[in-house]
Amino acid sequence: MIEPFSAVDLISTKRDFGELSKVEIDWIIDAYVRGVVADEQMSAMAMAILLNGMSMREIVDWTQAMINSGERLDFSSLSAATVDKHSTGGVGDMITLPLAPLVASFGAAVPQLSGRGLGHTGGTLDKLEAIPGWQANLTNEQMLNQLHQVGAVICAAGAGLAPADKKLYALRDVTGTVPAIPLIASSIMSKKIAEGTSALVLDVKVGSGAFMKTIEQARTLAKTMVEIGNAAGVKTKALLTNMEQPLGKAAGNALELRQAIEVLNGAGPQDVIDLTVELATEMLALVGITGIDVKENLENGKALAKWQQLISAQNGDLSKPLPAAKFTHQIYAADSGTIAKFDALSVGIAAWRLGAGRSRKEDSVQAAAGVTWTIELGQKITKGEPILTLHTDEESRFDSAIAALESSVVISQGESVAKPNLILDRIGE
Amino acid sequence: MIEPFSAVDLISTKRDFGELSKVEIDWIIDAYVRGVVADEQMSAMAMAILLNGMSMREIVDWTQAMINSGERLDFSSLSAATVDKHSTGGVGDMITLPLAPLVASFGAAVPQLSGRGLGHTGGTLDKLEAIPGWQANLTNEQMLNQLHQVGAVICAAGAGLAPADKKLYALRDVTGTVPAIPLIASSIMSKKIAEGTSALVLDVKVGSGAFMKTIEQARTLAKTMVEIGNAAGVKTKALLTNMEQPLGKAAGNALELRQAIEVLNGAGPQDVIDLTVELATEMLALVGITGIDVKENLENGKALAKWQQLISAQNGDLSKPLPAAKFTHQIYAADSGTIAKFDALSVGIAAWRLGAGRSRKEDSVQAAAGVTWTIELGQKITKGEPILTLHTDEESRFDSAIAALESSVVISQGESVAKPNLILDRIGE
Repeated sequence: MIEPFSAVDLISTKRDFGELSKVEIDWIIDAYVRGVVADEQMSAMAMAILLNGMSMREIVDWTQAMINSGERLDFSSLSAATVDKHSTGGVGDMITLPLAPLVASFGAAVPQLSGRGLGHTGGTLDKLEAIPGWQANLTNEQMLNQLHQVGAVICAAGAGLAPADKKLYALRDVTGTVPAIPLIASSIMSKKIAEGTSALVLDVKVGSGAFMKTIEQARTLAKTMVEIGNAAGVKTKALLTNMEQPLGKAAGNALELRQAIEVLNGAGPQDVIDLTVELATEMLALVGITGIDVKENLENGKALAKWQQLISAQNGDLSKPLPAAKFTHQIYAADSGTIAKFDALSVGIAAWRLGAGRSRKEDSVQAAAGVTWTIELGQKITKGEPILTLHTDEESRFDSAIAALESSVVISQGESVAKPNLILDRIGE
Repeated sequence: MIEPFSAVDLISTKRDFGELSKVEIDWIIDAYVRGVVADEQMSAMAMAILLNGMSMREIVDWTQAMINSGERLDFSSLSAATVDKHSTGGVGDMITLPLAPLVASFGAAVPQLSGRGLGHTGGTLDKLEAIPGWQANLTNEQMLNQLHQVGAVICAAGAGLAPADKKLYALRDVTGTVPAIPLIASSIMSKKIAEGTSALVLDVKVGSGAFMKTIEQARTLAKTMVEIGNAAGVKTKALLTNMEQPLGKAAGNALELRQAIEVLNGAGPQDVIDLTVELATEMLALVGITGIDVKENLENGKALAKWQQLISAQNGDLSKPLPAAKFTHQIYAADSGTIAKFDALSVGIAAWRLGAGRSRKEDSVQAAAGVTWTIELGQKITKGEPILTLHTDEESRFDSAIAALESSVVISQGESVAKPNLILDRIGE
C-alpha cells in the first residue's frame, strides 16, 4: 500500500502551528492503528497538539477518526431514548450508581459504559465489583437485551469501541501528553459517541481532586466536548461541579457503594443527593422528560427497585454482605473551630494508598479499602472529635495514607467559612 | 537498578516550560541510550524542547551528557594545536577539501571528522570517495598517526563518539523534531567536542540551500554553538555565510572534488577561494598562527602537496582519472539579461535527483552525478548561452532533475543586481 501522507509532514504541520485537514487526520489515526505511524511519531504529534492546540474543526475530525477506528453500537431498536452521563473523575464520585437507575426509573434508557479507576480517582466498575457476583463484561447483545428489559446497564466498554483511543491513551500516559484538552475531549467523546447514546450529560469536575484544577480549564474542556457531541448529533450538556473537597462521605469501592445504596433508599449525604438529582434532571430533559419531581423516585423506592433489577441482571447478589476492611484507623480533630479546608486530592491519594486505587492498569484493588469522613467545608467541630476513618485489609498501608492526609484538613478559629457551591457552571443547550 | 527519575516527570517539566537540572539531563540521556527511556518518550521530549526551548545552561549540560555517552579522542600527544571546521551544510560546499590541507600547510593539526550527505546537501566523505581507493574509515590510532605524520586527516566519525547523538538524531529524523536549535547545536557540538579539537570554526550557512533560512535563525544557532564550545574549553568562532545561491560552480561528488583540486592548484571559482581563505584565516588565528598570507599556500603548491599526502595516507590514488557521468544534458539561458536569482535549493535537489545524493542513510550515491553551472548572481548573460549542465549515469533521472530546476534561475532585464555578500556575520571571540 502506498501511503498518501508522511507522518513527518503531518507532525511538522502541527509543530509549525498549521491545521491538519480531515483527510490528513483520518489517515494518521488509521495509519497509527495499522502500525504504519510509529509510537514515537504519534507521541511527537501529541506533544505538538498539547503545546500548539487544535482548531474545533480538527478536534471534531480527530474524534470522528477515532470513532471510525472501531465499531459503533446501535440502540435504534429501543423504544426509549438513550441518555448517558460521563464524569471526568473525582474523589468519592459514585454518582453513576444511584443516577443510572434513577434516570431509568423515569423511562429513559441508560447505556452507561464505564471504566476502572487509575491513581487517586475511582472507577465505577471497581465500585460495582464490590457486589458479590456482579459482572462488568457484557457482550453487545447482552447489553442491548438488558436495556430492553431493565432500561439501564452499567458495564465495561468493549475492546471494539474506538480502539485508536485505547492505543493513543496508553501512549499519552507514558509520554507526558495526557493534559492536552483536544486529546482529552476527543478521547472521552469518541467512546461516548461510538457507544451510540442519543444524549449525554458531562460532569466536568473542577478543583484539587479533579483533573482540571481551574474553572477556566474545565470550562474550555466542557465547551470542547459539548461542541464535539453536538457536531456528532448527540445532544450534549455539561455541568461544572466542585471537587475542591471530596464528594459525599466516603472514598473507596465498597464504602462508596454502601453510600450509593443509602441514597437509593432516600437517605445519604446531601451533596450526593443534590448532584444526582441535578444530573438526572438534565439527562431527562435532554430526552424530553420534564415536569417531573426527580427526587421523588429516590424517596418512593422506584429508583431502588430499578437498581435491584440492574444489579441482578448482571449477576450481582445484593443479599450478600458487602466486604468490610480488616483494619481501621481513626483521625481526630486537632482543634475546635470551623472546617476551612478539606482537600479532595489528599483524601483520594490516601484511599489509593490504603488499597482502593491502582497505580497501573494491571493492578488489582481492595474492595473494602478507603477513607470515610464526617466533615465538610464550613462545618463546626470540637477538638478530639473523630473526623476521618481509614480502612484497609493491610495494616502496613496506614502510615503512608496518614502521611497523605497530613495537611488535608484545616480548622479555622476566626473567620466564618461559606459553604461552596456544588454546581459552578452549565455549558450547552 | 532503581531509576532516580521518571521520564514522564522530566517530559512534563519541559512541557510546562520548566528547566531540567544537570542530573536530570545526565539521567535522561544515559537512560535513553540504555533503552530505559523509550523512543516515544524521547520524541515527546524532543518536541517539547523544540517548541518550548532550553536555557543555555540546559543546552550545555545536554551536550555534555551526549559527549559522556561515548569515548573522547585525545590529541594531547600532538605538538601542533588542533583546529577543526564544521559547516551546517549547503549546495556545492566542498570547502573542507581545500581547507584542511591549506590549514595543515601552516603547521596546525586538522582532525576533520566528516559525514555523508542526506537530502539536497552533500557530504565530504561522499566527495572524497570519488577518488579511487580512498578510505573513509580509520581507527582512532590510524587517525592520530596521520595527524602526527601529515598534520591533517578527513575521516568518518567512529561509532564510539557520542552514541546518544546518533540514536537521538535518527529519532528526530522520523518525528519532525530536527529543526530545534538546542538539539541541532548540541548534536553538532557533542561530536566536535568529543573529537577532542582545541579550536573550532563553524560555517553556518544561511539561505535557500541551507538548513537555516533566515539570518536570525542562523545567528541564534551560531551563538548557541559558540557558547557550548567555549563552555567546554574549545575556542569556537562562527561565520554566517551566504547560501542563497550555490557555492562555486558544481554540486555533486566528483564534480566538486575536481573543483577543489583546481582551488588547490591556485585556480577555481572566486567564492570558493574566498571562503576557503576566510575560514583558514579564522582557524589559524584561533591556534595563534597569524601574520601570514593564507592565500599564498594555495598558489605556491604547499596546500596541494599537503592534499596529496593526506589523500595518499588514506590509500587514495590521485593518478587515476576521476569518474565522469555517462550522460549530460545542457540547459540554456531563455533570455538575455542579468542573473537576478539562482536558487541553491533547486540545484541541490536536482543534483540529488541525478544520483549525487541519498534519501535514506542506507542509499548509495553516484560519484559522477550532479550539476555544474557557469552563472552567478549579478552576472550578465545572453539568450541561448549554456548556463547549467546536468550529469548522471542514468538517463531516466534527467526529467525530474530538470523539473527541480524549473524556476531556479531568474533573468532580469531591468534592474541591476548587486553581488551578494559571502560573509554575512561573525560570531564569537
